[in-house]
Amino acid sequence: MRDSPGVAVPRALAFDVFGTVVDWRAGVARESGQFLRAIGRAEVDAAVFADDWRARYQPAMAAVRDGARDFVVLDVLHREMLVDVLRAYDVDPGSLDGALLDDWARAWHRLDPWPDAVEGLARLRAHVPVVTLSNGNVALMLAIARRGGLVWDAILGAEVTQRYKPLPEAYTATAAILGVAPHELCLVAAHHSDLAAARDAGLLTAYVDRPMERGGAPAPDRHLRQSWEWQVTSLIDLAEQLHG
Amino acid sequence: MRDSPGVAVPRALAFDVFGTVVDWRAGVARESGQFLRAIGRAEVDAAVFADDWRARYQPAMAAVRDGARDFVVLDVLHREMLVDVLRAYDVDPGSLDGALLDDWARAWHRLDPWPDAVEGLARLRAHVPVVTLSNGNVALMLAIARRGGLVWDAILGAEVTQRYKPLPEAYTATAAILGVAPHELCLVAAHHSDLAAARDAGLLTAYVDRPMERGGAPAPDRHLRQSWEWQVTSLIDLAEQLHG
Repeated sequence: MRDSPGVAVPRALAFDVFGTVVDWRAGVARESGQFLRAIGRAEVDAAVFADDWRARYQPAMAAVRDGARDFVVLDVLHREMLVDVLRAYDVDPGSLDGALLDDWARAWHRLDPWPDAVEGLARLRAHVPVVTLSNGNVALMLAIARRGGLVWDAILGAEVTQRYKPLPEAYTATAAILGVAPHELCLVAAHHSDLAAARDAGLLTAYVDRPMERGGAPAPDRHLRQSWEWQVTSLIDLAEQLHG
Repeated sequence: MRDSPGVAVPRALAFDVFGTVVDWRAGVARESGQFLRAIGRAEVDAAVFADDWRARYQPAMAAVRDGARDFVVLDVLHREMLVDVLRAYDVDPGSLDGALLDDWARAWHRLDPWPDAVEGLARLRAHVPVVTLSNGNVALMLAIARRGGLVWDAILGAEVTQRYKPLPEAYTATAAILGVAPHELCLVAAHHSDLAAARDAGLLTAYVDRPMERGGAPAPDRHLRQSWEWQVTSLIDLAEQLHG
């Protein structure tokens, strides 16, 4: 449904990626299951391992967002988070081959799009530019896009702006790079927290419902739900609501 | 011809855009002809006007490259260069509407690809990532790409690295963003000066011959000609040489 009839159609669409465009949990679980078997830990539930890895995401970015640490790309944080989660599973990362850890950390490069994403993006891109506004770095976004056949007009986001969401500059600098005003850019995301920050920064907002992002578990940010400009069940639904 | 048989195939291709992928002179002349007529200066040779505008390109970037000026995107420099070239034609820019000047400066957004570019890029992109490594900013590259149907895996270059070519960091930072070593990245360009700087920074090099870039006039950097890893007559030729 379109919550706010009469609102202007965006001049460009910026997408959150993890959870919104790709199914991070299934991909990280699939990849981690292979590595867990390779290190003799086949009994670990790979989906829970994926959740535990992802749980370190916001804390890992906090030091960069707060300025306590210079900007580093998400690939670096993902590897640090992996080392940390392995320790929590009583695995000594120092006992593992460095190349294996590098490859495992790049599990995030090998995620698959949700079933509607390729077609939905293509239909949207026929009308307006579609760009990434993810905390993932360029090489990570590029690998996911090439793997899944996602076509972006540009890969923007944290590495380009040197700001992690939900800092307001992550959103406003992306609009400035595109040469549009914040209110002409729409963030498309499956997360109320991301959309709330984008709205505070002046962007339009489109919520995509992804009930299986956490395997059906409730979203931790559901208390931040608002009436977004658009609420859709898929990127194809968004294309139909925006451009008919 | 392939000058250095046995050299490794690049893991990614980074493209100069103005002159290499798009015909800047014809596009800027076509656009400027319309504006010159609109301001009552139809007698001016629009192709010469385009050359005079482009002649201010290297001087405009020099202050930024030298650190005398903070980084500003090429859209800003293009507008300043336009004001300067108009004065050289005895036009008072202050007498013109600001919106007209903005639109005229965006003539560079409305350039067309060389006839081989769309197909050549698509064929190359089937094998390796293709990205822009232009001094043009993201909005400028994005507009050109959408107009002409060019599909890039990422728009990199000056705005992303905050460095104008031919500074070495413009090339090495682009490789780092892509997660490849400099010697795994190949610059594709129609300009020996650009390729020479890329080679000095450790990149592979592919020269595309574009004899009509300056309407048939000799290239100002022809004295920098070297034996590049690849020398091609079109992007389709490059695809055939690289991937058969």
